Amino acid sequence: MSKKKLNVGLVGYGFMGRTHSNAFAQVNHFFDVDYEPVRKAICARDAAKAKAFADQWGYESAETDWRKLIERKDIDLIDIASPNNTHAEIALAAAHAGKMVLCEKPLALNRKEAEKMVEAVEKAGVPNMVWYNYRRVPAVVLAKQLIDDGKLGRIFHYRAKFLQDWTISADLPQGGAALWRLDVNVAGSGVTGDLLAHCIDTAMWLNGGIDQVTAMTETFIKERKHNLTGKVEKVGIDDASAVLARFENGSLGTFEATRYARGHKALYTLEINGENASIAWDLHDLHRLQYFDNHDEGRVRGWRSIHVTDSDHPYMKNWWVPGLQIGYEHTFIHQAADFLKGLSEGKTPAPTFRDALATDYVTDAILDSAQSGTWKQVHGA
Amino acid sequence: MSKKKLNVGLVGYGFMGRTHSNAFAQVNHFFDVDYEPVRKAICARDAAKAKAFADQWGYESAETDWRKLIERKDIDLIDIASPNNTHAEIALAAAHAGKMVLCEKPLALNRKEAEKMVEAVEKAGVPNMVWYNYRRVPAVVLAKQLIDDGKLGRIFHYRAKFLQDWTISADLPQGGAALWRLDVNVAGSGVTGDLLAHCIDTAMWLNGGIDQVTAMTETFIKERKHNLTGKVEKVGIDDASAVLARFENGSLGTFEATRYARGHKALYTLEINGENASIAWDLHDLHRLQYFDNHDEGRVRGWRSIHVTDSDHPYMKNWWVPGLQIGYEHTFIHQAADFLKGLSEGKTPAPTFRDALATDYVTDAILDSAQSGTWKQVHGA
Amino acid sequence: MSKKKLNVGLVGYGFMGRTHSNAFAQVNHFFDVDYEPVRKAICARDAAKAKAFADQWGYESAETDWRKLIERKDIDLIDIASPNNTHAEIALAAAHAGKMVLCEKPLALNRKEAEKMVEAVEKAGVPNMVWYNYRRVPAVVLAKQLIDDGKLGRIFHYRAKFLQDWTISADLPQGGAALWRLDVNVAGSGVTGDLLAHCIDTAMWLNGGIDQVTAMTETFIKERKHNLTGKVEKVGIDDASAVLARFENGSLGTFEATRYARGHKALYTLEINGENASIAWDLHDLHRLQYFDNHDEGRVRGWRSIHVTDSDHPYMKNWWVPGLQIGYEHTFIHQAADFLKGLSEGKTPAPTFRDALATDYVTDAILDSAQSGTWKQVHGA
Amino acid sequence: MSKKKLNVGLVGYGFMGRTHSNAFAQVNHFFDVDYEPVRKAICARDAAKAKAFADQWGYESAETDWRKLIERKDIDLIDIASPNNTHAEIALAAAHAGKMVLCEKPLALNRKEAEKMVEAVEKAGVPNMVWYNYRRVPAVVLAKQLIDDGKLGRIFHYRAKFLQDWTISADLPQGGAALWRLDVNVAGSGVTGDLLAHCIDTAMWLNGGIDQVTAMTETFIKERKHNLTGKVEKVGIDDASAVLARFENGSLGTFEATRYARGHKALYTLEINGENASIAWDLHDLHRLQYFDNHDEGRVRGWRSIHVTDSDHPYMKNWWVPGLQIGYEHTFIHQAADFLKGLSEGKTPAPTFRDALATDYVTDAILDSAQSGTWKQVHGA
Repeated sequence: MSKKKLNVGLVGYGFMGRTHSNAFAQVNHFFDVDYEPVRKAICARDAAKAKAFADQWGYESAETDWRKLIERKDIDLIDIASPNNTHAEIALAAAHAGKMVLCEKPLALNRKEAEKMVEAVEKAGVPNMVWYNYRRVPAVVLAKQLIDDGKLGRIFHYRAKFLQDWTISADLPQGGAALWRLDVNVAGSGVTGDLLAHCIDTAMWLNGGIDQVTAMTETFIKERKHNLTGKVEKVGIDDASAVLARFENGSLGTFEATRYARGHKALYTLEINGENASIAWDLHDLHRLQYFDNHDEGRVRGWRSIHVTDSDHPYMKNWWVPGLQIGYEHTFIHQAADFLKGLSEGKTPAPTFRDALATDYVTDAILDSAQSGTWKQVHGA
Repeated sequence: MSKKKLNVGLVGYGFMGRTHSNAFAQVNHFFDVDYEPVRKAICARDAAKAKAFADQWGYESAETDWRKLIERKDIDLIDIASPNNTHAEIALAAAHAGKMVLCEKPLALNRKEAEKMVEAVEKAGVPNMVWYNYRRVPAVVLAKQLIDDGKLGRIFHYRAKFLQDWTISADLPQGGAALWRLDVNVAGSGVTGDLLAHCIDTAMWLNGGIDQVTAMTETFIKERKHNLTGKVEKVGIDDASAVLARFENGSLGTFEATRYARGHKALYTLEINGENASIAWDLHDLHRLQYFDNHDEGRVRGWRSIHVTDSDHPYMKNWWVPGLQIGYEHTFIHQAADFLKGLSEGKTPAPTFRDALATDYVTDAILDSAQSGTWKQVHGA
Repeated sequence: MSKKKLNVGLVGYGFMGRTHSNAFAQVNHFFDVDYEPVRKAICARDAAKAKAFADQWGYESAETDWRKLIERKDIDLIDIASPNNTHAEIALAAAHAGKMVLCEKPLALNRKEAEKMVEAVEKAGVPNMVWYNYRRVPAVVLAKQLIDDGKLGRIFHYRAKFLQDWTISADLPQGGAALWRLDVNVAGSGVTGDLLAHCIDTAMWLNGGIDQVTAMTETFIKERKHNLTGKVEKVGIDDASAVLARFENGSLGTFEATRYARGHKALYTLEINGENASIAWDLHDLHRLQYFDNHDEGRVRGWRSIHVTDSDHPYMKNWWVPGLQIGYEHTFIHQAADFLKGLSEGKTPAPTFRDALATDYVTDAILDSAQSGTWKQVHGA
Repeated sequence: MSKKKLNVGLVGYGFMGRTHSNAFAQVNHFFDVDYEPVRKAICARDAAKAKAFADQWGYESAETDWRKLIERKDIDLIDIASPNNTHAEIALAAAHAGKMVLCEKPLALNRKEAEKMVEAVEKAGVPNMVWYNYRRVPAVVLAKQLIDDGKLGRIFHYRAKFLQDWTISADLPQGGAALWRLDVNVAGSGVTGDLLAHCIDTAMWLNGGIDQVTAMTETFIKERKHNLTGKVEKVGIDDASAVLARFENGSLGTFEATRYARGHKALYTLEINGENASIAWDLHDLHRLQYFDNHDEGRVRGWRSIHVTDSDHPYMKNWWVPGLQIGYEHTFIHQAADFLKGLSEGKTPAPTFRDALATDYVTDAILDSAQSGTWKQVHGA
């Protein structure tokens, strides 16, 4: 049976451009969905790099102006994988042109921009989704299932951290190319938008809304050479961010993100403690889930290390055989599969732009609190 | 060579009465110190229980009034292992009588009491020490050595948690006997004084003073039957406590303690991230230290799981052979050994009453902040 | 720069047909090689299934007779992913026709067949390789590098196990479709050829030739219904296999494979102990390597858990960023990349058919020893 | 209530002299038994060392001739903690004198000696026990309970290893003082009697008798300076030993012991795989048990890491509170407690001399097989 073609125009060829492209290339090999994403065009300002990327990833064409990409009749979907400060403008134009829009996280530089983006896609009525990919780790989905099944009972605690160490060197410049995440004008914030946003998105998915927060942030290296200006400039991003939170369900949250935790590369960990059971997960061993069930017989009660590779685990019957792990990139393939399935069913799976806006409300409250030193109510909560 | 006798009068026969007694019984079997603690008398209000404890632990006599114990000429040292609300009065009397004083943690119900206790022992010039026993875990001492050796460089982060789950059931009464830790009048506070105090003590020992804190606490079960009155009463303690902190050295701290983390029995974990190296430890596997050294060759850089049982590890040459682990009780034996060695050398090892007061300053600031919702400067910091 | 096309004809659409197809589809997205494998034709007896597989994986055509596939002028390479009892005949014909030949492991039903296959490809002078994919796990390659660098010194011990539990149920039939691995006529042997062969291949790659072995095998479930005949028949395969071995370098080896180790899905573990360092790895966390270096300072000596995801780790600069793990399927992509690179360089990377024959010599000696109950010299060792 | 005194005469003041003395000193602090072991006399050839040990451990007297010790009317029990080659003669004399006899493992230099010892104690009708202490690790006892409860169903596999690395250096002399374990005349064998014997004892306790074995041993360092003669002499012990075994219940066993596994200090690991459940344990984290129960719901099936510190775990209600681990030395205290309880009940708990003889039968068969290169039937099996 032949698939319906879905013509994709990708903006950006960096790290996220690759993960998305891989998702489009692989989804039909493993998931039985009605749609087939066609890698129609890649857009990037540097024509040579765009061309090279197109060759490597099998895009049929390359563009250097995203406005032109959006104008193309043969493009159904705009996928935004360019730096944060470009998200809003591109998304607004794409929605205006009636294209479906996928966008890398965080949705925008701040909640004002994000609100406009939500308004635009909803007004245009176009399918829209944000690549908070950790919602599609099989182990994390299993956690969600267990929570939804009521296995945990009343929730007391939620804690998450995202620890990295790649910016410890004071010699690392800020800004430009792969380093745009250090440039506050391009990134909007530091670890709060980059790493903590992931923690917040998953947290609200698993444990519901966040009511209030108090936070501290720190910039350990105050000045860095800027790659674009060539000058040593004040660093505007937060290097580390730590948060106390109260969830709407009465549970307590603690969050932390940093790029100064020596020895951790991408250690996103989360744990949720309920009356009857607890769950923990970490990205460095993403194929495992830790689960403690207080209903187990006392003598043999213990944290179970679940190797989430069985056929009854989320997404896993589509992959290999039990015991054989998948990795990071697969989360994007799963998200693409869910998006395509959603198209057939006439509904867009979460996280939509609106879902991602909720995360921006929290990260904005965090940054505000870190400035003011006081507890902040989350907008809309 | 015959040892000098040190006559001990112990107050309290509970959990801590046992750990201290074991330390006195064992220290000379494993450590070559000049003094031999003699289990002279145990004091408890219940004469039969005091007698039974004396029989089991080899105390020569039993008392029911601690004032009488302090008056005894044949007692050199008063060891306070009774509930928190008794610490101050006993310690003041013991110091006044010129006895050495050991005291369980936390030092007092609050910093006002604690200040008086410090004043008393310092005025009397008697050796004094507080049983913050986790400073004597070999792995934690190794961490201290590595930090003091400068292996970590500039410190960015310190994080600690103490997670338990034993009070989740709403049927658990408060107060009386082994449950005094749930009675705010006896305990002073909940997890902040009981568990978080340990985290703070170790943190300041390893990473220096704490400048400011902001905190939240929660009492999940609002009312419990009180064992002494037989009535359902409001619960006054904090069930959970979470803290953001700024250390004097510029590093960021996060702390959490709770008795509502299902699946964790006594999971005290700590981690410190420096420019060049990081260290992590947890009480559930207390004989191991995790260490990451960024100076290792890149390809083979990884967290080292150090089995802290070699003869060049702190305290371990006194025990068995490499690979054979010791446990929880040994921390008290180590502390006793250090105290006795200190007597020979004319100095009291940390943590003294004054050191413990510093922890009370932090926990008081935490409780204040949780009330006010604002950042608090730590007294004296 | 445009790639040279390499037209692939795949035989078999099962589990291994999928892993190989994925490798062909993905290799050019991540590795910069001169050749591009073109999925030209898939061959399987069932025309409908062959067609469906072709659609899913983008093969241009489907065949039902492998002889016809081999005759096709537009096929450069025959990739054999069909059951073990078909390997020899297909490989011989492919070699005879001058095609490159890739073959799933084990090479053949027994060493006699395997010898003919080696002779055929060597006589024809065609590139040939066997999919012992675990040689391409980045962590295992790192182990190889460390051994080759002399980090371990004199080797004392090598131990490996491959534990599964999927055939414990007596209700599982033997033979037919996905269950051909339980049919001795199709598989040749049970776990010895299926699982232990992987252990032996890696062992000889890392630690050199094996001189002698003594072994025991067992068939726990003696009779099973045969899916093809519909009758209960004697089970001819070995369910479990355990081996003591002496390596040519004087070190001792222990090996075990089973499908009756409840709780283990695909737990391939290996460990090598040298005078100066030791290394351990396991497939359930394939992105990690455990390394102990006795030259580390005594106090901080410990097993390092290396997260093999840094850019200086084998193959990893081609994937994502540090901390983000890859999985099982990637080993096949790496092997395809190496094969294609070899084509450009005019040499076939290991393991060639000849390398795989060496493994068959060992597994044959193991099966012989299990029968005779005596030590067996490995052929050619 | 006052205890009955049990007067102990200890022979040997080495590592095992200390573990036994500690057991006698501690048992009444933690276990409510009718008897109180009195440290009456320590016997060692070196009078000064015997005296020093007596002082340190509170023995009332010191002897230099074990014959004299046995003659003493005030000694009820002879505890043999001296090197292996002294066990038989002392035990025979002690039994002849009607003393209770405790003996370190292995029981004797070989099975002939061991048989005489069994005969002697049984003829004399004296309580007798061998310190195979790992039977008293709470986690191992829990494993025994689960097996006895039938949780595992039919057993397929048993595997155990005991890995150390302390004799790798060729500069280490053999014989004399703490090094007697390297002198074949004193030790009887190398790792087979020292380490593998532990594995065999536990294995038969958990999984029943062993029928047949095939084995290989190796002496990696062929010559070492002998500390007593001062000359370089041939090494007579086995440095490493590996075994395949068939248990009487039809399950397969693999065993290995070595002192050449770099990075492992005392890594005794065991695992048992049954139809319905599996269990694993290791001495480096002796307070944990790994348990996999196939009856768990599929999605959340995983290896449970049981922190064996709850009050419903074997022996643990006598120690501290949940989450607080005990260590190596406690196994001896437990064994002493069980022995004393046995005295009250008129029965000697396992392992008796006869139980230990069964282990000697297996280790003798192992050493025989390693010599002959053939499978050996275990004597009496």
